[in-house]
Amino acid sequence: MTMNAEEISKIVDEVVARVASQLGAAAAPAPTASAKPEASCPADKDARTAASKEVLDKGACRVGVTDVKSIHCDDLAPYIDHTLLKPNATEQEIEKLCLEARQYKFASVCVNTSYVEQCARVLEGSGVKVCCVVGFPLGAMTSDAKAFETRDAIAHGAEEIDMVINVGKLQSGNFAYVYDDIRAVVRAAQGRIVKVILETSMLNEDEKICACALSKAAGADFVKTSTGFGGGGATAEDISLMRRIVGDQMGVKASGGIRDCTIAAKMVESGANRIGASASVNIVKGEAGKGGY
Amino acid sequence: MTMNAEEISKIVDEVVARVASQLGAAAAPAPTASAKPEASCPADKDARTAASKEVLDKGACRVGVTDVKSIHCDDLAPYIDHTLLKPNATEQEIEKLCLEARQYKFASVCVNTSYVEQCARVLEGSGVKVCCVVGFPLGAMTSDAKAFETRDAIAHGAEEIDMVINVGKLQSGNFAYVYDDIRAVVRAAQGRIVKVILETSMLNEDEKICACALSKAAGADFVKTSTGFGGGGATAEDISLMRRIVGDQMGVKASGGIRDCTIAAKMVESGANRIGASASVNIVKGEAGKGGY
Repeated sequence: MTMNAEEISKIVDEVVARVASQLGAAAAPAPTASAKPEASCPADKDARTAASKEVLDKGACRVGVTDVKSIHCDDLAPYIDHTLLKPNATEQEIEKLCLEARQYKFASVCVNTSYVEQCARVLEGSGVKVCCVVGFPLGAMTSDAKAFETRDAIAHGAEEIDMVINVGKLQSGNFAYVYDDIRAVVRAAQGRIVKVILETSMLNEDEKICACALSKAAGADFVKTSTGFGGGGATAEDISLMRRIVGDQMGVKASGGIRDCTIAAKMVESGANRIGASASVNIVKGEAGKGGY
Repeated sequence: MTMNAEEISKIVDEVVARVASQLGAAAAPAPTASAKPEASCPADKDARTAASKEVLDKGACRVGVTDVKSIHCDDLAPYIDHTLLKPNATEQEIEKLCLEARQYKFASVCVNTSYVEQCARVLEGSGVKVCCVVGFPLGAMTSDAKAFETRDAIAHGAEEIDMVINVGKLQSGNFAYVYDDIRAVVRAAQGRIVKVILETSMLNEDEKICACALSKAAGADFVKTSTGFGGGGATAEDISLMRRIVGDQMGVKASGGIRDCTIAAKMVESGANRIGASASVNIVKGEAGKGGY
């Protein structure tokens, strides 16, 4: 929280340069230290686009998380955050969500913070985690408010935090703000998993790269594509890009529009190691789902 | 915060009964105390619907806020909360919003909390208030988090708070939760204006009545129709209903889809005394706006 804008820019530059170096190494048949490109994440928009193009053109170093060929639909259960985030979700629907998560052994249920307490009670001892969203879905509340919501959710039983990045500040070129914002939630989470929702449908390619780099630099555990409320969902291309940027030491969560097993498997194949979905039961049963969020 | 569910139900019953009494008085040519209907807001859904129908069928007691016939488009400026809530609003766009609000003398700018500080700085001494949204747009964060976001926004310069009601808890019949949730924000606001966004497009008629009654009982200053993100906006029918329920001691704010002067004037005519809009400049100029939020 004490870093200034220049220091943040340096971190972003370093992370992007390191990513560029890795991509260069993967693309080139005989990589050397001198192959490291001069990639950066400058504040100027045109320069930023040019820099990101340079990074991406280096090649397609995809991190394969699992052997997708051998995946059956019901193998996907441990990848899935079983999700119900619509504002008119009732207590009865949340109860059903939790019981389904227990039955199918999903990774977690993902809910708004006012339902964390109920989920923690229903899921106690089940091995299914309680995941919740913070600053959701706009990501535009103050950092202190996001940090408070995180602490409050944890006090009520949350084990994973899916926060939304401040898209407006990112697109204003205020990287220091975005870094501090993520960092505030990471600190408030006290070691629990923090996923940063990028809302990829609103970002261009260089902004996606910057968002991944900032999330990594700020100590988040996952980057995640979408809120499901922002007019777009996960794409295989975005998952692949995000995986290339964060490497294999961070998680990548695909969310938004994942309605069936085929789409979910495609996301895993592209580099996702977590899936956010409300059609989770359909996914593991291999049936067509109707989506929703 | 110490009232139990039964006490809340009593308050809701009393408020709805009082409203029913007023409606009866307005509809009947010679109202008496015995004309008070047995209206209530019971937990049972069918009973609730029947009760609300009974209340509404009593007549159309519309509170006229102003003489609409004499309104010109540019007279609407003091009614308008000039609004920019999209998650990808940049610092530059927020600056423009504030300058427009100064120029046209709108009531306030309405922004997400991460932009309150910037708005307070730009608008200092202008007479234009800083309004912000809390728990927005889902209304599904914990009450403590809403209260914290309110205090934090006020510390940064917010003068009005537009909070979102917890729709899921309302539809679960958990009125005590909804009352406490609003009450927590009202207390945190320390006398500043609190508007409760009902997200009317998600509510049926009896739920709208309950939401208005709970808002009034919890000490809020306004009820407001919509977030603009919930798939529906203000309608003249909803404004008229809300005005009838809360009477003339509370405000009614129309928001969502108010794109031009004609729609805005219709809302005022129906009982609104505040308008939330992003097309505010178009409205006061009498031009067609393109909406957005």
